This record gives sequence, C-alpha cells and structure tokens, in this order.
Amino acid sequence: MTKTDIAKRVYDHTWKLDPVIRSLLDTDFYKLLMLQMIWGLYPQVDATFSLINRTKTVRLADEIDIAELRDQLDHARSLRFSKKEMIWLAGNTFYGSKQIFRPDFLAWLSEFQLPEYELARRDGRFELRFHGRWTETSMWEIPALAIINELRSRATMRSMGPFSLDVLYARAKAKVWSKVERLRKLPDLRISDFGTRRRHSFLWQRWCVEALKEGLGDALTGTSNVKLAMDTDLEALGTNAHELPMVLAALAPDDEALLEAPYQVLRDWNQYYGGNLLIVLPDTFGTESFLRGAPDWVADWTGFRPDSAPAIEGGEKIISWWKERGRDPREKLLIFSDGLDVDTIEKAYHHFHGRVRMAFGWGTNLTNDFEGCAPVEISSLNAISIVCKVSHANGRPAVKLSDNPEKATGAPGEIQRYLALFGETGRVAKPVKV
Amino acid sequence: MTKTDIAKRVYDHTWKLDPVIRSLLDTDFYKLLMLQMIWGLYPQVDATFSLINRTKTVRLADEIDIAELRDQLDHARSLRFSKKEMIWLAGNTFYGSKQIFRPDFLAWLSEFQLPEYELARRDGRFELRFHGRWTETSMWEIPALAIINELRSRATMRSMGPFSLDVLYARAKAKVWSKVERLRKLPDLRISDFGTRRRHSFLWQRWCVEALKEGLGDALTGTSNVKLAMDTDLEALGTNAHELPMVLAALAPDDEALLEAPYQVLRDWNQYYGGNLLIVLPDTFGTESFLRGAPDWVADWTGFRPDSAPAIEGGEKIISWWKERGRDPREKLLIFSDGLDVDTIEKAYHHFHGRVRMAFGWGTNLTNDFEGCAPVEISSLNAISIVCKVSHANGRPAVKLSDNPEKATGAPGEIQRYLALFGETGRVAKPVKV
Repeated sequence: MTKTDIAKRVYDHTWKLDPVIRSLLDTDFYKLLMLQMIWGLYPQVDATFSLINRTKTVRLADEIDIAELRDQLDHARSLRFSKKEMIWLAGNTFYGSKQIFRPDFLAWLSEFQLPEYELARRDGRFELRFHGRWTETSMWEIPALAIINELRSRATMRSMGPFSLDVLYARAKAKVWSKVERLRKLPDLRISDFGTRRRHSFLWQRWCVEALKEGLGDALTGTSNVKLAMDTDLEALGTNAHELPMVLAALAPDDEALLEAPYQVLRDWNQYYGGNLLIVLPDTFGTESFLRGAPDWVADWTGFRPDSAPAIEGGEKIISWWKERGRDPREKLLIFSDGLDVDTIEKAYHHFHGRVRMAFGWGTNLTNDFEGCAPVEISSLNAISIVCKVSHANGRPAVKLSDNPEKATGAPGEIQRYLALFGETGRVAKPVKV
Repeated sequence: MTKTDIAKRVYDHTWKLDPVIRSLLDTDFYKLLMLQMIWGLYPQVDATFSLINRTKTVRLADEIDIAELRDQLDHARSLRFSKKEMIWLAGNTFYGSKQIFRPDFLAWLSEFQLPEYELARRDGRFELRFHGRWTETSMWEIPALAIINELRSRATMRSMGPFSLDVLYARAKAKVWSKVERLRKLPDLRISDFGTRRRHSFLWQRWCVEALKEGLGDALTGTSNVKLAMDTDLEALGTNAHELPMVLAALAPDDEALLEAPYQVLRDWNQYYGGNLLIVLPDTFGTESFLRGAPDWVADWTGFRPDSAPAIEGGEKIISWWKERGRDPREKLLIFSDGLDVDTIEKAYHHFHGRVRMAFGWGTNLTNDFEGCAPVEISSLNAISIVCKVSHANGRPAVKLSDNPEKATGAPGEIQRYLALFGETGRVAKPVKV
C-alpha cells in the first residue's frame, strides 16, 4: 500500500515559516538565573547587545537572506512563555532547590516578550543590535545566535539533495556516537550539553542530547537548554556569564568601583543563589588579576568556571589559589566549557582526575560538528565563532578582556584602560575556533 | 501541530506479516537467464537444492523462529510475476539485446510459482531442502537465502531500542559512503551490486544501491537484483552459476561425459546467449583442470568470472591461458565476485589495470557489512556464509570442487571421485568469511 497523507503533504508545502525558536524556554538556563538577579537589582539599567562574528572569513549576510532572518527574529518576538512552561519553572527543582524562581519574578516573566532589534546589512555582514532594558535585551543572546546558526545551516543544505542529506546526518550521527564511545570510557565523568547557541539546528541538538543520554547515562548531568531539560527530564544547568561583570564594570563611577565589579557580581549573585550555583566565572578581566584581588570568601564558593584560559593551565592556577587560601581542591569543582571536544575533555579529565571535582560543559563541538560529514565537503557547514555580547550599559562602553586576547570585546581605547587597571599577566593568545 | 495518522498507525500495528520477498523479480538476474536455458534444454531434470551454512559457529535455528521462517517461505510461494513485471521482462533491453527472453519461455514464466519446500529443525540448525523439477527448485536459491539473512537481522534488531537502531543505520550508511569515497578514486572502475542473497534486508540493499548510484555514477554498471534494476532503471547483471556444470556432471553417464560437462554447459549457453553474456565460470571443478581441457573456442568467449581463487592469482592464470591461446587479454573481461571488499577491489584494480578489462560484482560486504555499527557490538549482525546449492540431480549426487576446498560441496566420497578425475592442482584453501 503506497499511502500519501494528502492533507499532511499540502500542509507541509504551505508552511509560511519553519521557526528556529518555538519557545522562550529554548534558551540557556543561565539567562533565566541572571535575569532574575538583573530584574531584582538592576531593573532600570539599559544594556545593548551586539552580534559579533569572530570568524572573519565568513560573510554571514552573503550566506543568509536578511528577509528570512527578519522573519525568524519577528517570530521569536511573538513568543510568550506558555502556561505549561511557567508551571514547570515554578514547580521544578533546579540544582536541588525548589522555588529557585521567586513568585514576583515569575509573574513578571509570564508577560515577557523579546524587545525590538536593529538589523542592517553592511559589506556582507549583519549589524544586529538590541537596545533597551538589560532585563529584556539580555534574553536575545541565545535565540539570536541560534537563529543565525540554523539559518546558515539551512542555506547550505538547500543545495543538497535528499541522498546527500541522508549521508550528511548519518555521518554526523556516527561521529557523535564515536565521541560518546570515547567518553564512556572515563569513569565518573560529569558532562553536560552547553551547545544551544551554536547548534546546527534545534532538532540536531535534541538528537545529540538524546545520544549523550543513551550512551553516557548518569555521566550526562544535564543540558543548558531549558526546553530540552523540560522535554527530556534532564537537569537544566548553567550559572552566570560575562555580561554581569561587564555591565557592572561599565556602570562603575570610578576605577576603584571598576576593580571591585567582579566581586560585586558575586555578592549580588549570593543574594539569589547558593550551593552548586556558587560558581565563579573569573576571566572577564583576566583570571590572574581576579584571583589576586579576590576577597577570601570567594574561596568558599563551590567552584570556578575557567572559560578562556587553556584548560590545564587555567585549572592549575585556580587549584594553586585554593591551596594558598587553605582550601582543599578535592572538595572544589572546576567546570570546563571553552571550545571543548573529546581530545581536550580526555586530556583535562586525566590531568585533574582525583585532584579536583570536574564537570564539562560541551558546546559547539557537540551540537555543530559537521566537518567531513557532507558527501562533498562544504565549508559553510563548519561552525563559526559568533557571539552576542553586551557592548554598552546605560550608554557607557562595556569591555571584556578575557584570558585569551582573541576573545576580548570592546572599543580598543576602553580595552587599554581596562588592561592598565587589571594588568595583562597571564593572558595567552590562542586561536578561537568556536 | 502534532499529527498522528490514526488509520496508518492502526494499519501498521495490525500487519500480519512484513514480507521479506515481495516480488519474484527480487532475485538475481542470472537465475532467469539460467532458467530459460534449463527450461529449454533440461525441462524434465529433477534437482534438489539444499541450504548450507558454512559458518559453523552460528546456529541459525537458535536465532530464527521456525514458524516465522515458514510464514516467509509460504508468502514467497504465494507470489506470481505481475503483469507489469512480465511486460518489463519482455520489453526491456538486457546486455544490449532486446527480447533476450523468448515469448514461449515468458508465457511459461507468467504462471511460475515457487515449489514446495522441506523444512526441519535439528540440533540448532535448519534443514531446508527443495525437491522437484530443476526449472522450479532453482528459483528458490535467492529468496531462500535472502529470507534467512533478513530474518536473522530482524531477530537481532528486535532487542534494540529506537536510538540504537538509529545509530546502527547511521554508522552503516557512513561506512558504505566511506567505501564509495575510496572507490570513486579509481578511474574507469566498473562495479555492480551482487549483494541480494546475503543482504541485511531488502530496504538496506536498496539504500546501498542508491548510494553507489549517487556516489559512483557511471562506474556503477548495474545490479544483479532484477527488481532493483527495474525500479531504479539500472542494468540487470549476471550470467551463470555453478549449478549448471554441477547438474550436468551429476547426470553424466560416464567419466568421459563428466569431464566434458563444464564445456557442455558453455555449448548449451551459447544456444541462448551471446556477446557480453559469454562469461565463463571456470572453477566448479577447479580452474586449472578447466583451462587445461578447454576447447580453443572457449578462448573466444568475452570473459571469465574467477569465483573462488584469490583474485590476483586467479586472474593471472586466466590471462596466461588467453596468451597461450593467442588471445589479447586487453580485449577480454575478468569479472571478480568472490568475497570482495574495498581493499581487495583496489588491489585487483591496481594489479590488472591496463592489462585486461575488469568488472567487480560486489556482494555481501556491500549489502551486509554491519560490523562495528551497533552501539553495543552484536556478533549476530555480522554476515554469515550461507549458500543454497544443488545437492542432487535426478537422484544422483552433485558435487562442487571449487578452487578453494573450503567452498567444496557434496558427499566426501563423491568429492574424492571428482578430484581423482579433475585433479587437485591449483586449489588453495583460504577461509570463507562470506
């Protein structure tokens, strides 16, 4: 019996839009944690977020149709948190705690809508900016990146026939699974999906997370993607990002306040969260200066997420610091999340095993590794390094120095001012692939 | 919109049988060519075919449910050539010739039905035999083997969850495609699918053939599977098999006639076919004795299919023989078809390139190579070496010596008698994997 469901076929062919973002929960969990804090402590602050494509060889506006991009951004703006999603956020246990989100915040969130965007095309590149209240613009980071990455995949795949696509996904699945097979050999591994923003597509991220769940079992501790966490009963994971110290530093009235900004963030955070959410992201203005100036209570926090130093050097630096401060690293947690793939995970795992608790947040190389998968190699399926960073707060320029100068953002003059204050020691340039 | 087609779901769940064989054309083309000759010249001969599992470590009756096997064999017996199929056989061009099948043969074929079978279980093994007219029993070879192989795959896969199956096929596809990528580097390669009998499943064979078509283009010269040839507009390929000399030898009244049987087959064949169908299969009773005793006109035939000697030694032997007989090997064709995989294809290709025309008939390692594909290794997905061989003709025992003693069939006493007549020189034992 050859059976064509005519209604389905017609419906499929008359789709107006295949939305990349179908839910406001399709974002990283840390955005919601940060949002509650921003909403509570900095409700009147304005913050501008801007798209930055660090892969200079790729001209996104040549690959992606701007009208299509607008349609997707507009569709994301039409979304609201659904009743089911609000109930789940209120009722679910996150990081072992119930009611991590306060009722008044959730009441506000239930009305949330992504704010307007500014989009232009210039010289083969998109200029995409989000102006407005920090409480609103912050939420664009993940959907904006996911939309651009998926539109780029789609544009490339439009030229591929059904058989090529079949081979493409078969090979990509085989590739993910061979990674899983290597990772399952590491006892007590703790790894999670951090791949939302740079994923090949939503469906592909879901497949990758299912693959990790199937292959790694309990070693998969969760996903940063809130929707996937809800849909697949995994833990939603994530803590905080560079935007917090970046905005606080930009708002600082003087150099003293600026130098204090990275620690002020932690004090603010501690008003809202505790336990395993007490994770320090130390590299916004350089890990070395952060550690040097850190008050002693910072060493009481659960762990660190070194995000731009090479994993082993960065980890060693923090372990030494814990020891100097009289803490036992074996009770502490290091979360690695910078450009990981199986090689770097294995290397860091073996290096630190038994000396410190470890967790890995695996991003782009989990959810967007299609190199060598197309029947005929197509470079436009290789992931690129795009970010959506806060560029201004209340009109003042924001800066990120990072442990890797290649990841620095901000106006050159401002970067110099920050470098003069925080110092340059310990920064090591390495190419940023993703 | 989540959309479940309720009718389809209910229909799918109430299937009585998922047939392995859905068409009598789902067989190897050489069976039809041989059948026309048998029907014309040996219509009264009885021939018994028997299943032989050469992989002794696998106990088929422990893996496959006998009732399920009966259902599939019964279903195959219910099939007839359809009108569309008969029209295609009559109207299609095979090997460049129109009307290769004679109208009276086609008229007989349109009524064809697979004859009865005898099936028993003994000590973990199936005893499966087909008694009756050669014109009927011969046609069981391919469907019987395909049914057993696919039921074995299904039995194994029944214990696998949807995710494991997804990874299994993704890896198998990636594996086939990496083979395609190696083969496409060989200019002027001529290769065809010979993988019907030992395929993992019908749908998988179809995928493999599509992959070769997509990846190799004109280097794929066709498929031995008549149904796939019809459905995908490929050439149907194949010539003749060991059963012809085996039966004629079994029927031989004396040693002289027996020694003459391999050449009698060629004379018979020549009454029906010419051109590129004039391919000699020399190894039934040993290639060396065949060449030694061959009349000179055998060297005028288009080519040879050495099927059990190692490709290079076997090919060299035939090339030398052509030269001795004053023929130019560059105008001749060697068809390799014994247990090929990419390594052996590349090796033979490079060895003989420019010295002789070559074609490769790629079987089991094309359509049933699942080693290392399951998420958790399962040996029961590895192909086994089963054949369905003629064991008696008009009640007299049939024998195959082969160039590889591991591939010999027949009663030990009979094998000795044949060896005494044809000689043993040139036979080299090598393990039979598939």
